[in-house]
Amino acid sequence: MSDSPCKVINGDGGYVLQDVPHLTDYIDDLTAYPNPLRSNPAYSVVKQYFVHMDDTVPEKVVVHKDSPRGIHFRRAGPRQKVYFKPEDVHACIVTCGSLCPGLNTVIREIVCGLNYMYGATRILGIDGGYRGFYSKNTIPLTTKVVNDIHKRGGTILGTSQHVHDTSKIVDNIQDRGINQVYIIGGDGTQRGASEIYQEIRRRGLKVAVAGIPKTIDNDIPVIDKSFGFDTAVEEAQRAINAAHVEAGSSENCIGVVKLMGRFCGFIAMYATLASRDVDCCLIPESPFYLEGKGGLFEYIQKRLKENGHMVIVIAEGAGQELVSESLQSTNQQDASGNELFQDVGLWISQKIKDHFAKLDKMPINLKYIDPTYMIRAIPSNASDNVYCTLLAQSAVHGAMAGYTGFTVGLVNGRQTYIPFNRVTEKQNKVVITDRMWARLLSSTNQPSFLGTKEVRGKHEKPSTKLLDGVNCREKTCN
Amino acid sequence: MSDSPCKVINGDGGYVLQDVPHLTDYIDDLTAYPNPLRSNPAYSVVKQYFVHMDDTVPEKVVVHKDSPRGIHFRRAGPRQKVYFKPEDVHACIVTCGSLCPGLNTVIREIVCGLNYMYGATRILGIDGGYRGFYSKNTIPLTTKVVNDIHKRGGTILGTSQHVHDTSKIVDNIQDRGINQVYIIGGDGTQRGASEIYQEIRRRGLKVAVAGIPKTIDNDIPVIDKSFGFDTAVEEAQRAINAAHVEAGSSENCIGVVKLMGRFCGFIAMYATLASRDVDCCLIPESPFYLEGKGGLFEYIQKRLKENGHMVIVIAEGAGQELVSESLQSTNQQDASGNELFQDVGLWISQKIKDHFAKLDKMPINLKYIDPTYMIRAIPSNASDNVYCTLLAQSAVHGAMAGYTGFTVGLVNGRQTYIPFNRVTEKQNKVVITDRMWARLLSSTNQPSFLGTKEVRGKHEKPSTKLLDGVNCREKTCN
Amino acid sequence: MSDSPCKVINGDGGYVLQDVPHLTDYIDDLTAYPNPLRSNPAYSVVKQYFVHMDDTVPEKVVVHKDSPRGIHFRRAGPRQKVYFKPEDVHACIVTCGSLCPGLNTVIREIVCGLNYMYGATRILGIDGGYRGFYSKNTIPLTTKVVNDIHKRGGTILGTSQHVHDTSKIVDNIQDRGINQVYIIGGDGTQRGASEIYQEIRRRGLKVAVAGIPKTIDNDIPVIDKSFGFDTAVEEAQRAINAAHVEAGSSENCIGVVKLMGRFCGFIAMYATLASRDVDCCLIPESPFYLEGKGGLFEYIQKRLKENGHMVIVIAEGAGQELVSESLQSTNQQDASGNELFQDVGLWISQKIKDHFAKLDKMPINLKYIDPTYMIRAIPSNASDNVYCTLLAQSAVHGAMAGYTGFTVGLVNGRQTYIPFNRVTEKQNKVVITDRMWARLLSSTNQPSFLGTKEVRGKHEKPSTKLLDGVNCREKTCN
Amino acid sequence: MSDSPCKVINGDGGYVLQDVPHLTDYIDDLTAYPNPLRSNPAYSVVKQYFVHMDDTVPEKVVVHKDSPRGIHFRRAGPRQKVYFKPEDVHACIVTCGSLCPGLNTVIREIVCGLNYMYGATRILGIDGGYRGFYSKNTIPLTTKVVNDIHKRGGTILGTSQHVHDTSKIVDNIQDRGINQVYIIGGDGTQRGASEIYQEIRRRGLKVAVAGIPKTIDNDIPVIDKSFGFDTAVEEAQRAINAAHVEAGSSENCIGVVKLMGRFCGFIAMYATLASRDVDCCLIPESPFYLEGKGGLFEYIQKRLKENGHMVIVIAEGAGQELVSESLQSTNQQDASGNELFQDVGLWISQKIKDHFAKLDKMPINLKYIDPTYMIRAIPSNASDNVYCTLLAQSAVHGAMAGYTGFTVGLVNGRQTYIPFNRVTEKQNKVVITDRMWARLLSSTNQPSFLGTKEVRGKHEKPSTKLLDGVNCREKTCN
Repeated sequence: MSDSPCKVINGDGGYVLQDVPHLTDYIDDLTAYPNPLRSNPAYSVVKQYFVHMDDTVPEKVVVHKDSPRGIHFRRAGPRQKVYFKPEDVHACIVTCGSLCPGLNTVIREIVCGLNYMYGATRILGIDGGYRGFYSKNTIPLTTKVVNDIHKRGGTILGTSQHVHDTSKIVDNIQDRGINQVYIIGGDGTQRGASEIYQEIRRRGLKVAVAGIPKTIDNDIPVIDKSFGFDTAVEEAQRAINAAHVEAGSSENCIGVVKLMGRFCGFIAMYATLASRDVDCCLIPESPFYLEGKGGLFEYIQKRLKENGHMVIVIAEGAGQELVSESLQSTNQQDASGNELFQDVGLWISQKIKDHFAKLDKMPINLKYIDPTYMIRAIPSNASDNVYCTLLAQSAVHGAMAGYTGFTVGLVNGRQTYIPFNRVTEKQNKVVITDRMWARLLSSTNQPSFLGTKEVRGKHEKPSTKLLDGVNCREKTCN
Repeated sequence: MSDSPCKVINGDGGYVLQDVPHLTDYIDDLTAYPNPLRSNPAYSVVKQYFVHMDDTVPEKVVVHKDSPRGIHFRRAGPRQKVYFKPEDVHACIVTCGSLCPGLNTVIREIVCGLNYMYGATRILGIDGGYRGFYSKNTIPLTTKVVNDIHKRGGTILGTSQHVHDTSKIVDNIQDRGINQVYIIGGDGTQRGASEIYQEIRRRGLKVAVAGIPKTIDNDIPVIDKSFGFDTAVEEAQRAINAAHVEAGSSENCIGVVKLMGRFCGFIAMYATLASRDVDCCLIPESPFYLEGKGGLFEYIQKRLKENGHMVIVIAEGAGQELVSESLQSTNQQDASGNELFQDVGLWISQKIKDHFAKLDKMPINLKYIDPTYMIRAIPSNASDNVYCTLLAQSAVHGAMAGYTGFTVGLVNGRQTYIPFNRVTEKQNKVVITDRMWARLLSSTNQPSFLGTKEVRGKHEKPSTKLLDGVNCREKTCN
Repeated sequence: MSDSPCKVINGDGGYVLQDVPHLTDYIDDLTAYPNPLRSNPAYSVVKQYFVHMDDTVPEKVVVHKDSPRGIHFRRAGPRQKVYFKPEDVHACIVTCGSLCPGLNTVIREIVCGLNYMYGATRILGIDGGYRGFYSKNTIPLTTKVVNDIHKRGGTILGTSQHVHDTSKIVDNIQDRGINQVYIIGGDGTQRGASEIYQEIRRRGLKVAVAGIPKTIDNDIPVIDKSFGFDTAVEEAQRAINAAHVEAGSSENCIGVVKLMGRFCGFIAMYATLASRDVDCCLIPESPFYLEGKGGLFEYIQKRLKENGHMVIVIAEGAGQELVSESLQSTNQQDASGNELFQDVGLWISQKIKDHFAKLDKMPINLKYIDPTYMIRAIPSNASDNVYCTLLAQSAVHGAMAGYTGFTVGLVNGRQTYIPFNRVTEKQNKVVITDRMWARLLSSTNQPSFLGTKEVRGKHEKPSTKLLDGVNCREKTCN
Repeated sequence: MSDSPCKVINGDGGYVLQDVPHLTDYIDDLTAYPNPLRSNPAYSVVKQYFVHMDDTVPEKVVVHKDSPRGIHFRRAGPRQKVYFKPEDVHACIVTCGSLCPGLNTVIREIVCGLNYMYGATRILGIDGGYRGFYSKNTIPLTTKVVNDIHKRGGTILGTSQHVHDTSKIVDNIQDRGINQVYIIGGDGTQRGASEIYQEIRRRGLKVAVAGIPKTIDNDIPVIDKSFGFDTAVEEAQRAINAAHVEAGSSENCIGVVKLMGRFCGFIAMYATLASRDVDCCLIPESPFYLEGKGGLFEYIQKRLKENGHMVIVIAEGAGQELVSESLQSTNQQDASGNELFQDVGLWISQKIKDHFAKLDKMPINLKYIDPTYMIRAIPSNASDNVYCTLLAQSAVHGAMAGYTGFTVGLVNGRQTYIPFNRVTEKQNKVVITDRMWARLLSSTNQPSFLGTKEVRGKHEKPSTKLLDGVNCREKTCN
């Protein structure tokens, strides 16, 4: 019995399994039961329905003849044995953080999965994120209640971004007699889930904690992509199209679209690649500068001269150091004005307008579009709907099978169980020395904003990461 | 120098590489040139831009500690050396078979890829499928011509389903001095591409033949999914929603939706899973019967009694043996009537109406929707757009690098080059003894239509396939 | 007290008011109450909120200096006095006939109108059309129940097309103590509503009967357009676009789209005008023929030769006489085949295929699309939503004010009350000797299919109708 | 020959015709020709195709038995005689002001109308608004160039908002030999068009000037509604839905949506009525206040307490006096911050945040959505497409028939020719003492923000306007 975040099992040829915890790791003499799916008519025809206990999925799939086999994760899916009797299951579901298309689908499918696959019917919705654990109100979740919710955006459970008190939450879980906790949220939330799991383990409780990673930005590492990302990239096309039409209808007109991505530029990058109407894509991972040779203003001027108009896509976290610098240097007296300029879209729009106002020969038009909430609030598309279903079912199978302290995730196209620490230890980022970003640069023809010095600096980390096979992946939304 | 479809390279630990042919396999003393991407500003910052010549991707990713390493494919992407000077490239593109969302995007990105990445500008569009090779008319393709085509459905090159004459086509390729042939089409088309490649090789021509597999049905084996499939599943939701609304507004009303899938039920299955409004999904892989215990009519009657309405999704290739039987037994005189009933949607709708007309206590309503052309003809969604871009670029990199006789495809999330024979030797099918189908059965609650005997029969093949790791994949559209 | 369907009031200058009945026409000594809207804060600021009792709207608005003033209808809206106390209102709502976008919005707004404007809360939904009056089940309608229904297609009350028994329905109305009956349906339904009103009047009951005309085909006379029509024309664009893309991607390809319109071609005509991708539009009002000079086949051949592809839009009721002839002449033995061919879309597709199969030099492709249910089942668009709201509120104001035996309708942009007989006595049709049809002919370039003789025949009726100002209207969906 | 803007003709019964000018008013001995439509096969079957020279349409349709007949406009449409030979026509088209859905459709239909109906083919597009008249570049417009433009948003001619020099423009018209000028734009543009017409008349030129009023805000008086308005209201639903979902997913969350409407609140009002998810709609016509009893803050607090969330729709011109006051009172040093706060959406969002930050017991969330450019830039929907077609054709018929100095517009559902002064003399506004606004107040339950004093003040004007029949109209988007 150990407290370490990650159980490691080694095999031949450099095979490493980063396994997830199991209730039996810290509780002795737990009874196992045959999986009730055995008698489910839908599953009974499936000969090899249950996942083989040795099935694992490699983190890295681009290999050489002589590569060591590397890190693997446990394959998700139903097991021969479960550690909860259906009638004993008392599950709860909580959604945290910002909205993301697919939240309601995940909720629906956890409820339906527990019900239809395992016959477990006691399920509570926690109201308004983690802090809902302290409140008396909960939302009873039945298959009827959740039947149509996947057609609506948002989350029927409500959400919030408050800090949480692990101990109080676990008290509440204990008080209510909850024994399966499904936690849907981003990296902060998964970190919280990890703490909740640790505390539950410390107390020796038979409570399975399963995370379903949620991040519209796609900044969760290890997994192929997060749910809602596809839908977001799709919906972002509307805003880019509008910017393109506006820009194309006036002289020297610049359409600026801000997209989500506080720390990473995946939505901006994929939306740009999918659209092909974008002339410049600015993301947090690729520092840029405004003035001087090779700077943004020079490029804008060039594009306007060539083409008469242009479209800029900027991720919300791009150029943060420029924004801070700029705000520090301006009058500190107008707090609320400053607050607005922390929005990089408003900030860069103003900077561009100010710059060209000074160039009196070149009056410009600028149209700024911020579709953030219009993207976040839509229901998930069909592809994300299916993905959410698989994630939810994997979480249910895992919890029923007694796994705990894990997050579910698609790795190289397969559902897996991943230890919490692997999804919280760092953030997934666009690697700007990788080919996907080169594709983007090639499609927009924008400058790389990289002097020789910087490139060399940038090279160090990715080149080692590359050995891990993380960055060489084509994260193709596929 | 060999004529075999597939070059096999073996390595340690059971590693097998099923490699693709290269022009140097049958042409001696070919000159190689440095890849012009080296001097492309977009790519010059990318340190490890060129794919390592040993990079391969395993076909099978669910493994055990002691699994043999299995079959691998060559990773797609730009190579250090190319075998064509940009100014010597004379490429042509042809699209064959039925419409599929994304065709225009693939065309656009081959043209833009050759241009922007390699500086190759002589590109012809072949008009109207394979037989366009015999015609004098071709469509000159420039980046300007293709600039906005990805926003339109269909194919600007036109398409057809005619048989082709390999020898005449290769004559024409030779006459025109074409040295790169990009062929977009389904399994029949890829088989044709393979024959064209064989003939070119026989003649010793320096002509690279690259296939881009196109099938809205997703019936190409080996690859994760085909382009356009996501878009199709998404668009199918409209038809299912309509059927659901119609069915729910009248008493004893049945909405029937026919979806694409002549030999496989992927679209029907994923559209059903994404929608959750479907009560019964019928696919070619899962034989069903109408009358008697456990049959479709019994199930319909049960659902109508419970719920007052229901939705049936049927793949176009489902129940073909029932249709043939039924048409043989009816009056042979009305040829055109019979022709209509070869449409399984019209046929099953009539069968259901006839059945319930006989049960006088149960008058039913039936609303039949066939959205096929409305789905096929839309432009690709954002996710498919990005996917098409990567496929097209992979094809261009491959041909420039001198590979030939290959098809591009996503394998476990990575772009690869696959020998033709692997994508044409069989068709991808829904494995009804696999978990994805069990998920569907569980979500619709429909009968499995399988007597004990049949299940046993069905078990044989999949269980061996399963060893290949093909069927245990979650083809998640993700 | 009279039984005549229509109260006529004459004025100066040829002014005629075709008035609607009122409860006081046949019930003496009815008490009137001040309209509770007087104390509604939303309305209290409106000085002239109540409709002036003399407000009327002319049926005909294209006039000459010396025109007689012509027929007028009573303007709809709230009156100073009402004839029901809020607490005494017991309303019911029934929906009949085929689905049409906006049904749920009308239901919602009758419920909300009665509640929020008048404080009346006892409202029943009749289940499944007229025959629901005989059944015990009814659906209690509260503002909460109807809150989100306008975002869904179909009707939450269900619908049917059964014949009805006026006497039984009125018995039921009497038994339940219902005193306001809102009937949503097409011309058949409104005829039924008229009979129900007559029977109620015969029995001397204080029950107001209000019709809300529903016809996706727009075939109700007098009114500017019916709700759902705009939405239908909009949604039809998808099908036409798909037909256009399909046709444009193959050689000699014909896209055929069948649209709603059993007796009139408004949807086909407006969808064609809105799209501009249609080469031929066939409607019930314009007879056509297939063979010979000036026939459809000749035109198809011409368009294919010129353009390589074409799109045909056909209303479901077009060419019925050709279909009957054709079915009579064929083998009578295949009943179900014949049934299919009563679908004019399938029939004409087969005819075209058969014709060109005989011309061996011209192999064609034909793609047939029937989007009927996909159009009918969608929720109403914003414009129809607002329109439905006004219709519902007008109906509520009218019933509260004691009017009965009326239908609500927009006449020249104003809400009015129209006597039943005016909306049931004939059907609204496209006048093919009118300018709107000329616009269509001019935009498609299709033949008029009219020999000299026929045109002369056709002229008679419209030219007299024209005096009524009915046919010279631009029914612009505006 | 007179210079007055409006020719007035009086008739019996108080009939007044406000006629439009004609070229023969100031040019003697103009030759008239038979309308070439006589020999157009599409039109030749239409018996009464040509508009009767006495056809007029009343401005006011709600009448009493004894009403005077009032103001009428000349009916639009083709005339028996035209004053231009097809081969002599040299037309130009210019688009001015902000984007609006439908611009490209109007351009397309003027070009197609001139071509297909009249055989006139010399048509120039003026580039980038009025100032394009001074530039050498023009865009030749053929039916081929404009064939697909109605499927794209924006304007292919470009637009601008610059002031213009009437004299220089007319010089240019004269220099180029242009004799038909089609001017698409808002009230400022139509005022410009009026001046251009006056100058042309002063010079005695045979040049017809036709205006097509364009205003997404619907603020042009007299006409039923402006093109693009329907599309805008429809598209605004997305933003409101998103605000509703966001608000409903967090505690005390306020969704704020800014919609177009600098001087009038039609889009905000109709979008609110169509959506039913809005709790408060703020428009320029209805002054409001923030603090104190009956103020906005009080109402917000109430709604949040009752419901936990709310949605506010604000027209861009609402509360301008509050914004100015507020900006004057704040620190003047941050010019660009102030610039941002001139955006009423950002301003009110900040005000609400500041207010509730002070109430420490009530932390709120606020999500601000500005969909302006995403609405303006989409293509017109089907209904607007048909409407644009009729407007364009009416303009063409009018100019060909020798009318000039007119704008086309739908009046009570009929196409008419309106003298410029009637559409420029004032702006169309929501009348807040009228029933449509009462409907909105009743549907949102928001306060009227009107003390007794103000209401009385407000009453004066509308009550007189009401006599004109302007305000009693249901502008139903129908």
